[in-house]
Amino acid sequence: MSDRVIRVGVIGAGFVGSALVELLTDTSRHVALVDAATAPIEVVAIAVRDTLKRRDGINSALITDDAAALAARPDLDILVELAGGVEPARSYIETALGNGVSVVTANKALMAQCGTALAQLAHEHGVDLFYEAAVGGGIPILRALRTSLAGERIERVLGIVNGTTNFILSKMTSEGSDYHEVLAEAQALGYAEADPSADVKAFDAAAKVLILSSLAFGTELTGDEIFREGITGIRAVDVEFARRAGYVIKLLGVAERVGEHGLSRRVHPAMIPVDHPLASVHGAMNAVFVEGTKSGPLMWLGQGAGGQPTATAVLGDVLDAARNRVSGRHDVPFSVDGTLDMVEAGELASAFYISIDVLDEPGVLASVASVFGAHRVSIQSMEQSGVGDEARLSFLTHSALAKDVRATIDELSALDAVDLIGACIRVLDRGAS
Amino acid sequence: MSDRVIRVGVIGAGFVGSALVELLTDTSRHVALVDAATAPIEVVAIAVRDTLKRRDGINSALITDDAAALAARPDLDILVELAGGVEPARSYIETALGNGVSVVTANKALMAQCGTALAQLAHEHGVDLFYEAAVGGGIPILRALRTSLAGERIERVLGIVNGTTNFILSKMTSEGSDYHEVLAEAQALGYAEADPSADVKAFDAAAKVLILSSLAFGTELTGDEIFREGITGIRAVDVEFARRAGYVIKLLGVAERVGEHGLSRRVHPAMIPVDHPLASVHGAMNAVFVEGTKSGPLMWLGQGAGGQPTATAVLGDVLDAARNRVSGRHDVPFSVDGTLDMVEAGELASAFYISIDVLDEPGVLASVASVFGAHRVSIQSMEQSGVGDEARLSFLTHSALAKDVRATIDELSALDAVDLIGACIRVLDRGAS
Repeated sequence: MSDRVIRVGVIGAGFVGSALVELLTDTSRHVALVDAATAPIEVVAIAVRDTLKRRDGINSALITDDAAALAARPDLDILVELAGGVEPARSYIETALGNGVSVVTANKALMAQCGTALAQLAHEHGVDLFYEAAVGGGIPILRALRTSLAGERIERVLGIVNGTTNFILSKMTSEGSDYHEVLAEAQALGYAEADPSADVKAFDAAAKVLILSSLAFGTELTGDEIFREGITGIRAVDVEFARRAGYVIKLLGVAERVGEHGLSRRVHPAMIPVDHPLASVHGAMNAVFVEGTKSGPLMWLGQGAGGQPTATAVLGDVLDAARNRVSGRHDVPFSVDGTLDMVEAGELASAFYISIDVLDEPGVLASVASVFGAHRVSIQSMEQSGVGDEARLSFLTHSALAKDVRATIDELSALDAVDLIGACIRVLDRGAS
Repeated sequence: MSDRVIRVGVIGAGFVGSALVELLTDTSRHVALVDAATAPIEVVAIAVRDTLKRRDGINSALITDDAAALAARPDLDILVELAGGVEPARSYIETALGNGVSVVTANKALMAQCGTALAQLAHEHGVDLFYEAAVGGGIPILRALRTSLAGERIERVLGIVNGTTNFILSKMTSEGSDYHEVLAEAQALGYAEADPSADVKAFDAAAKVLILSSLAFGTELTGDEIFREGITGIRAVDVEFARRAGYVIKLLGVAERVGEHGLSRRVHPAMIPVDHPLASVHGAMNAVFVEGTKSGPLMWLGQGAGGQPTATAVLGDVLDAARNRVSGRHDVPFSVDGTLDMVEAGELASAFYISIDVLDEPGVLASVASVFGAHRVSIQSMEQSGVGDEARLSFLTHSALAKDVRATIDELSALDAVDLIGACIRVLDRGAS
């Protein structure tokens, strides 16, 4: 135990920031925190936007409205950045790292955008940059990938990493309700934003996939665009079809090896077999499923959001960074595997569920089926049901290339007899699990 | 990156030891291992019992039959102990730690028996003692408790930590088979030992509960005896009753706070609601469910046994110990919370499932019910079914003290009309989840 004190500055006192400061200053946890950090931790300042707002449990003497000045204080040991967004968060972090201050952040957008450059900067200055809370809220998955699994060869990472969409899809599954109905409910409950695009169009999940991929496979964090399909097109009938076929629909973030040197990173809805561990991840819970060559399947489950769960992840990082400060070392950033080729989503094969509303006329099924055949998409099973004057055709295909399925859909859309392409959802292959 | 090499000695080349050596010497992993360890790792010797046995993938020049001499080599950085059992493993580890050599072990029996003394010895000599593989095979739960959750107040840890019993109970559930039938099958498949006592009588799970408890709650590892009930008395009818009532039966290891200063550690079968995440942990999989005050529920799932998964946990420890050697530090052992009082299992309240075979005669149900009443055990629901000349009464009680339920059972056993007490199984309360 050293004599030193670890001085922490916090930018942002929203749900996560307030919960963190409460944890760091909770006298009943003092001994445990000192044991874990190997030194006492002192919160020296908290930068907020609105200094007049009443904040229970936070010493008002610590409040400042000058985040830039706090980030620039060279007497900090650790800067905790919880402001979110790319700028000015990036500048704050760069300033701190440049001053030899370790940084803990929950900022997934920023890390996905320029994590490689920031990690490199931290390494050059001999300090840590930790961001456990950027993925999966309170789930300690990033540290596990960095440490416990550092020597394992990961084959595939599957994540339910967006609580809002999982809440919506879970409700649609349990109640048979429609997307727009559940979205409105989620917005009323505060589980979804007024503009839900970041969640339902899968931008949020895509950033998390990039971060998971960097630790699992050594890809760089430089703001890559990856294949992204949201949940806005999923209907109650699709959820119901999935249920009858033994699946549940989840928004799935995927990073997986393809062949010897390929890697696919993507986010899309997927039909998951009900007996897969990810199928029972309900509501706003998050989960990350990892398949290692030797470890076999591993899964982490927990609260994907919320001030207190997320604050525990930030706290874990602060304690780790504190230990490193005390012993005068820093963790080496993730290694980069330059040999990996990114594989386009279209080049991947899987089974698909496809739902099409057609005119209920003789010969229509034959012409639809011939389009599948022309694109080498083989049908595993088909179900026809009447919808008013029309017929709904629900197909499960055998494994087919996504680009061939895309071409099938495009050609079907052009047929006069086809009224609507309802759904085109990948079926999760069982992988190593 | 330092110029030094981390010298590792391995005692034991069974499934885990062989898989570990293969991982450490796998040239395709060399770069990743050096990155993770911050130094190259060299396996300098492997101690085995039978030096004549052919071992693929292991350089025969490294083989020795003198484990004691290997443990005493002062030029080691890390000794990996995979021999198992308390002695001579304990002596090997003490010798190594005394020489300033870090130790990685998978030895749950030894850690449960004298983990406190060994951790203290490691600390005195400024080295690490890691034992991730002692609980949950390949699941990296111990490091998460030590690091990511070090600042969190844990309320409860629930574990399915014995693969053999989970395999047996899962089979009984999916196939409706009887215990002895499935045990024989498990033995034939190599999932259960010829003498299955350590598993089915829950000695193995109890050791793991002690280890989890030490990291989650700061209890000492000095070979405490804890409440332990195995699965040998569970019948197909109990599994079937549970299913109809919306539960599955699992062997559950529990460590949980009781009131302000109490702690309960125990292992017993439990009826788990089907929608609890632990309910879908099937076959030989293990899982640890942690409820933190702020983090909320968290769960880890993975392979609880097997050479390769377990070896990945050992490898994670070796890499962590290596990093510490290179940077000249060691991890501080778990802190001890001396304020905790151990609470006897009898003093805990829960609902119970109780099954009794009685003579099918008038007045029997009344006399049985009066015994429950006399011991303040209130009945929530009851089901009667005919079994030959007898009647089977299956009760679900409201929450009752286990000692009152015990007294009820004892008095019922003495009734002439009672032929058999079939089952008495706790129902998991939902806790924070």
